[in-house]
Amino acid sequence: MENETICAIATAPGMGAIAVIRVSGPQAFSICDGLFKASKRLTDAPTHTVLYGSIVADGVLVDDVLASVFRNPTSFTGEDTVEISCHGSVFVQQRIIQVLIKNGCRMAQPGEFSQRAFLNGKMDLSQAEAIADLIASTSAASHKLALQQMRGGFSKELEGLRSNLLHFVTMIELELDFSEEQVEFADRKDLRSLADAMERHLARLMDSFKLGNAIKNGIPVAIVGETNAGKSTLLNILLNEDKAIVSSIPGTTRDFIEDTVTIGGITFRFIDTAGLRKTTDEIEKLGIERTYQKIEQASIILWIIDSTSVSEHIEWMADKIIPRTEGKNLLVVFNKSDKLSKGEQLVLNDLFRHYSQTRIHLSAKKNENIDHLRAKLLEIAGLPEMEKQDVVVTNLRHFEALSMAHEAILRVQEGLENNQSGDFLSQDLRECLHYLGQITGLITNEEVLQNIFRNFCIGK
Amino acid sequence: MENETICAIATAPGMGAIAVIRVSGPQAFSICDGLFKASKRLTDAPTHTVLYGSIVADGVLVDDVLASVFRNPTSFTGEDTVEISCHGSVFVQQRIIQVLIKNGCRMAQPGEFSQRAFLNGKMDLSQAEAIADLIASTSAASHKLALQQMRGGFSKELEGLRSNLLHFVTMIELELDFSEEQVEFADRKDLRSLADAMERHLARLMDSFKLGNAIKNGIPVAIVGETNAGKSTLLNILLNEDKAIVSSIPGTTRDFIEDTVTIGGITFRFIDTAGLRKTTDEIEKLGIERTYQKIEQASIILWIIDSTSVSEHIEWMADKIIPRTEGKNLLVVFNKSDKLSKGEQLVLNDLFRHYSQTRIHLSAKKNENIDHLRAKLLEIAGLPEMEKQDVVVTNLRHFEALSMAHEAILRVQEGLENNQSGDFLSQDLRECLHYLGQITGLITNEEVLQNIFRNFCIGK
Repeated sequence: MENETICAIATAPGMGAIAVIRVSGPQAFSICDGLFKASKRLTDAPTHTVLYGSIVADGVLVDDVLASVFRNPTSFTGEDTVEISCHGSVFVQQRIIQVLIKNGCRMAQPGEFSQRAFLNGKMDLSQAEAIADLIASTSAASHKLALQQMRGGFSKELEGLRSNLLHFVTMIELELDFSEEQVEFADRKDLRSLADAMERHLARLMDSFKLGNAIKNGIPVAIVGETNAGKSTLLNILLNEDKAIVSSIPGTTRDFIEDTVTIGGITFRFIDTAGLRKTTDEIEKLGIERTYQKIEQASIILWIIDSTSVSEHIEWMADKIIPRTEGKNLLVVFNKSDKLSKGEQLVLNDLFRHYSQTRIHLSAKKNENIDHLRAKLLEIAGLPEMEKQDVVVTNLRHFEALSMAHEAILRVQEGLENNQSGDFLSQDLRECLHYLGQITGLITNEEVLQNIFRNFCIGK
Repeated sequence: MENETICAIATAPGMGAIAVIRVSGPQAFSICDGLFKASKRLTDAPTHTVLYGSIVADGVLVDDVLASVFRNPTSFTGEDTVEISCHGSVFVQQRIIQVLIKNGCRMAQPGEFSQRAFLNGKMDLSQAEAIADLIASTSAASHKLALQQMRGGFSKELEGLRSNLLHFVTMIELELDFSEEQVEFADRKDLRSLADAMERHLARLMDSFKLGNAIKNGIPVAIVGETNAGKSTLLNILLNEDKAIVSSIPGTTRDFIEDTVTIGGITFRFIDTAGLRKTTDEIEKLGIERTYQKIEQASIILWIIDSTSVSEHIEWMADKIIPRTEGKNLLVVFNKSDKLSKGEQLVLNDLFRHYSQTRIHLSAKKNENIDHLRAKLLEIAGLPEMEKQDVVVTNLRHFEALSMAHEAILRVQEGLENNQSGDFLSQDLRECLHYLGQITGLITNEEVLQNIFRNFCIGK
């Protein structure tokens, strides 16, 4: 399979001024030379040079193109690679792919270029995954995390953990070879402090996943409140200003930010909910059940209250909302605050002091104090925590491997506590090493690789 | 304005594996060098080479990229150019454009790269226009015409016409200098035969526009007939098979072929119309009026008739349809022909022999004989004529300039007929030269250029 030469359109689908088609594999130069008419053959061109010429198939001109030559091993994949920059007509792109396939290329699978880069040792698995994250990144924060991981920040940290562990495993296994002599090459005290440090380190990395995942996928924010509290008006204000900014930049597709807002580089996913009120109506009850589910999924709850008419239901609502916000951030937002005096606002604040630390007065309709809400959201989102930390885990697969490694380390700690014999300790240490190795792809298998790369886009 | 360095995303909008950002102008290397960290400066790199490095703005990494260097005058624009190939995240693309603009680039206008290429003598105007056509081409035929024009086929033909004319203009204007001596440097007989040849040549080019325009924009086909004749079924069969083919190729956007079908490399735009029948209902009459308008716009009319129940309205319909199809191609399509014997089909054929040369029996529902219809459409579309001709005019602007040149030549012919004096002839010949020169951009002005290039896509 790796002997095949693969091709794919690497630029976004659709019409552009130009498009780039990537060809990689042992036959990349010879297949392209059969179609590419220029002053020089690609086979003879030095690496990292660009030739101008024509793609001609069966005597018919397909397009005038630029062809860039990247020689094994200095290409992205580590293989011989040609990047054809053609006119960006969809028809031309398809024709070139067709003639490449007719002349011996195979259409690349999603992520196959990155997979080859990994298999050729150009990057480890977590770095390859970071490329996919980088391409999908839509905010400054997710972009930053992906770049950091792509540059190998996480890999380096894992390597450090592994080499510490490896040292001890080797010592312990040496003991086993000399088991009759009852020697201890691995100092149990040192091992204990290593295991403790390792446990803390892994726990910290696992902790960072909550933040990393939120940053990568957007922080879910549920907006709850009574129907007339102004939930939609507030949502629209947040959405529209963001949309106005984004759509002023040419070439932006709008689909994927439908209900997300980027504030200070962090993406928030806003989830509007049905109005909450005490009811006996069965259908309304169903809507309220769904609202509870959405609160469950969110990590921030905006409870919108109409300042001008604090409803009789408010106690009932507090009873329903508060227990569901445990471990989450609850912001109480008093809307229509322009209608209230300062004194009245203070009274409201006091009334709700038991429910939430954060109470904001604003007017969605008049666009007053919305910046305050934005600042609060950003504060809660944990950007400062991100700044403090070197590595933030963003990938569920990594989180799961870290969890398994963490469990193994807990067993090591327990074993040391109980003066367990070396062979048990060694087994748990090996397991910990195994899971850490899975993250960077040191330990892997075909099926895992396929699962990872098939979520990549074609051409990458 | 030309001293400014411009930048734009050159690949299709949206997310891809990679995206390409084009920077062109006198500061292209220095601006990019300020942001691009690599082993070598772009300023020092030879033309047509690629450097791997990082875009870093204000100390923050934006992306790891490839930068291709094209030195004036060997670039597309003829200026110093850098093409930055970055990860295809929309966020990354926008960030790079932002930092380029912050560091002295200006966002390019639509078509501005091509306009600079024209102004720097890299191509003439008709070639630049052909690039836009090439990018927009969605069929083999439109692609072929655009490539031919981009390669300068049309330009060469125009150059030939112009140089012939120029010779005679010079001769005639020489006569005017010696007007007192009554000499004739320009042989009137030779001039006459040149004018005749020129007139025929221009007429042929103008004629080709009908074909060229149809190929570029799709050949409009109106489907008319009674409501139950099976118009929609037939349209769906033609559309769906095409859609199935197109959507099997990855990365194809489907929007623009909503009601077009590509048959043998030619695009047909199908226009479904309201059912035609004799009526006194005012609203139905309105629908029928619209049907007439659509027949007007079409160049091929498919008149669909239900073979199993030729309506009592048929005479009335023939009266309405036939006069409106003059100068167009009318195909009479007998649908549901699977329900008829061969003999019955022949009777139908005979009944309609006065209406159309082309009568096809098919069953849309059973997908019978649809290939025959396709072959007929293709035959009518004039592909063979395209093969015969070197140059096909596809651009309305060119057609209009050719028409003006043609009128001038007609006046030259008339002037020669009436033994007009040299100064009149010279004036008309100059006018003819002027309009021919407009096509390639030999004669032009700022406003005309702006009108042409603002229809290009950004990044081209």
